[in-house]
Amino acid sequence: MTSGGNAPAAAAPPRPATRATYRRLSVEERRAELLTAALGLFAHRAPEDVSLDDVAAAARASRPLVYRYFPGGKQQLYEAAVGSAADQLRDCFAEPQTGPPTERLSHALDRYLAFVDEHDAGFSALLRGGSVAETSRTNAIVDGVRRAAAEQILIHLGTPDPGPRLRMMVRVWITAVEAASLIWVDEGKQPPVAELRDWLVDHFVALLTATAARDAEAERVARQTLSLETPDGAVADVTRRILPLVNDAAHLL
Amino acid sequence: MTSGGNAPAAAAPPRPATRATYRRLSVEERRAELLTAALGLFAHRAPEDVSLDDVAAAARASRPLVYRYFPGGKQQLYEAAVGSAADQLRDCFAEPQTGPPTERLSHALDRYLAFVDEHDAGFSALLRGGSVAETSRTNAIVDGVRRAAAEQILIHLGTPDPGPRLRMMVRVWITAVEAASLIWVDEGKQPPVAELRDWLVDHFVALLTATAARDAEAERVARQTLSLETPDGAVADVTRRILPLVNDAAHLL
Repeated sequence: MTSGGNAPAAAAPPRPATRATYRRLSVEERRAELLTAALGLFAHRAPEDVSLDDVAAAARASRPLVYRYFPGGKQQLYEAAVGSAADQLRDCFAEPQTGPPTERLSHALDRYLAFVDEHDAGFSALLRGGSVAETSRTNAIVDGVRRAAAEQILIHLGTPDPGPRLRMMVRVWITAVEAASLIWVDEGKQPPVAELRDWLVDHFVALLTATAARDAEAERVARQTLSLETPDGAVADVTRRILPLVNDAAHLL
Repeated sequence: MTSGGNAPAAAAPPRPATRATYRRLSVEERRAELLTAALGLFAHRAPEDVSLDDVAAAARASRPLVYRYFPGGKQQLYEAAVGSAADQLRDCFAEPQTGPPTERLSHALDRYLAFVDEHDAGFSALLRGGSVAETSRTNAIVDGVRRAAAEQILIHLGTPDPGPRLRMMVRVWITAVEAASLIWVDEGKQPPVAELRDWLVDHFVALLTATAARDAEAERVARQTLSLETPDGAVADVTRRILPLVNDAAHLL
């Protein structure tokens, strides 16, 4: 149980040198270093497969040192790592409010999917649920990220305070992005990430258009969004591609 | 801890009468009765808020009797209740392969949403995760239902063994249906269920169309599906509704 006490940083150098090594880092820096090590491990393994000793070894720290910064042990480290990952994800959503909306969405998705790529197994374990490390706190952090994503999208749609239908649409699309990301990780990251991104953008355009069919606010937003698109953009591209199909359905009209 | 032993059925009548009451039901019937009582409770409360005594009281049984049928106690009852709910859900998906595909989808969604309505709090607790009663077994049951739903949809699309893009599309849409159902329960079951159903059907049509833009198999399936639709059906309706919007986007083409 205390094998971590034999980790290199604590055992190898004589005591004064160890203290000097620790003194070089501020409390905040040391904590950040431990957290980075933890996130690096939790990114690629299920929380069950990461031990406190693993974190100590990765951070070249002793087990007692890890406990000094994280008295709650592995569970506290996990929650802190999830919180840190959540901050990174929130940064992915920041995008200037200029240019065609589908281009902005593509940029945000590129950053989001790069994050998923870098945290594959940890992302799956966290979102799939059923882990013993999953708590009301980790769930609240994940929900906070979803809310932040929805708020960003609604700001870009020009409706920061939308009606229930448009809000449901955005939340449902975000869930669809999560589901597609999980499948993508499961399937050895196929299709290529750019294809997945384009499909998710097309999905957004299609869902907004379908929602506009029965909701006046969504129709106004869709019209405003379309007015910012360009002939060489994603909306024009997907529209041209589905035109033959739509023409074949003319018998319905 | 043994207060369940004082439940009415075990304590009130003299012992011979109790035995006679039990003898009237076969083992299977008795088990089914306990399970129905459990499902009735787990449907409207989070598993944390249901006790074994609640189940015993609802089934007019004693606590020892419940333990005789479910030696694993509340956790085993919960998993059995989830399994029983999963069977009911699978039945929702059975739909004859005749008529316009969007009509078939509407019928299945009507049954699915009626199930969600009848199991609101339990459905939310199970799918939202983070409950102590959530295990790899309950997760496997939920995943089994998702797989069954995907298989049914793919059969109706005439592609029981599709390529990765079409399979991802169907799985992602199923997740979207779940997400919309959870939001719907949270928001006091608004919008009216028929509006939610129509929006989910529109979402499916829109997503299939968008997927067809970049996938030859999806395009073939979309074309085949459209050929079975009618001028008074859902596809024609949503197409007519979005035509003004699409015409306004003509500057893109």
